[in-house]
Amino acid sequence: MSLLHKLEWRYATKKFDPTKEVPEEQVTELLKAMNLSASSYGLQPYKFIVVKDKNLQEQLVDASYGQEKIANASHVIVIAAKTSVGEDDIRAYINQTAFLRKQQIEELEDQKSRIMSSVSSWSEEKKFSWAQEQCYIVLGTLLLAAADAKIDACPMGGFEPEKYNHMLGLKEHGLHATVIAAIGYRSIDDDYQHAIKSRRDLDDIVELRYS
Amino acid sequence: MSLLHKLEWRYATKKFDPTKEVPEEQVTELLKAMNLSASSYGLQPYKFIVVKDKNLQEQLVDASYGQEKIANASHVIVIAAKTSVGEDDIRAYINQTAFLRKQQIEELEDQKSRIMSSVSSWSEEKKFSWAQEQCYIVLGTLLLAAADAKIDACPMGGFEPEKYNHMLGLKEHGLHATVIAAIGYRSIDDDYQHAIKSRRDLDDIVELRYS
Repeated sequence: MSLLHKLEWRYATKKFDPTKEVPEEQVTELLKAMNLSASSYGLQPYKFIVVKDKNLQEQLVDASYGQEKIANASHVIVIAAKTSVGEDDIRAYINQTAFLRKQQIEELEDQKSRIMSSVSSWSEEKKFSWAQEQCYIVLGTLLLAAADAKIDACPMGGFEPEKYNHMLGLKEHGLHATVIAAIGYRSIDDDYQHAIKSRRDLDDIVELRYS
Repeated sequence: MSLLHKLEWRYATKKFDPTKEVPEEQVTELLKAMNLSASSYGLQPYKFIVVKDKNLQEQLVDASYGQEKIANASHVIVIAAKTSVGEDDIRAYINQTAFLRKQQIEELEDQKSRIMSSVSSWSEEKKFSWAQEQCYIVLGTLLLAAADAKIDACPMGGFEPEKYNHMLGLKEHGLHATVIAAIGYRSIDDDYQHAIKSRRDLDDIVELRYS
């Protein structure tokens, strides 16, 4: 199936089949894909919380304006942004890079200084919105990775982040629930799977500036 | 090639081969994939500006902190967020949906009211950050679509949006350059293609909440 077909196949699943579970090996593949997502300066200012616990999922329904798909989904993946990226994160990134590339930390000193000087010039608000933006790149990666594996997903912004932060104990770890994806397999009763995808015409959404 | 291999294959290309051009049919495929990206409420609050004009690309280098890859890339894709999504956008989306699904506008009245009531409750600032977040989902989709087609890409946040807005005449159309991707083919001189990807360990970035 071509990439365009995969994108056509996927849709924001409204109703999952509660009897079907995504195998753990496949969940791991999705998480690996998310971990390979691009991020600004490579800093990956986020964490992925995977919920597979019917009691907790039921509680999260209340924090998601009553949307039952959170309970019916096989797993719920919460992409949580770091609320304040700082020196420790940059140092951890540089250390990890040096380790993986078998380099001396000193060889990465310029890169480290460059990132430090950018990030330290940002307001706390800017750091937070920047971290949240990176979470949305991950979401784009996840949706395609799920479609590639024929796993259904519903990306969701309709939830109360503060309640999620509380229920999942995120705030005390400097994290904020930014966006979530429920994953599983579409119920045969979900009529939305038959709906024609609504998108803008290509020549409305694209503008070419060619010489 | 598996999806994970594609994600491993791609990297933020630092130096493009200036003699190689991405065929237009493939650029169109990338744009179709971007147009199929998921967006909140389906509203697609953005536009894609594709630049293939060496003079304009040279000018954009100055607005990108001198990064020559903007000039050497085959094409530069600017993902521009709408600065203020409003009733007209929602009406356009509902009309398009009704047209594509061969429905009467009246059948979509509830959906329209629901979106209207959400969006109209947001501050201008919130509308803008929301629109920008959707652009990052598109970026995630684009990077994977490019890798799928063996096209190299460099996602870039390091540019001056106001200058881009001015040079591309975006502001007067209610648009703001949010994030860009230079696309083309990696130069054999780009040493970064050989660097091991630096990513966090999976058990550091993932937290499982299983019953």
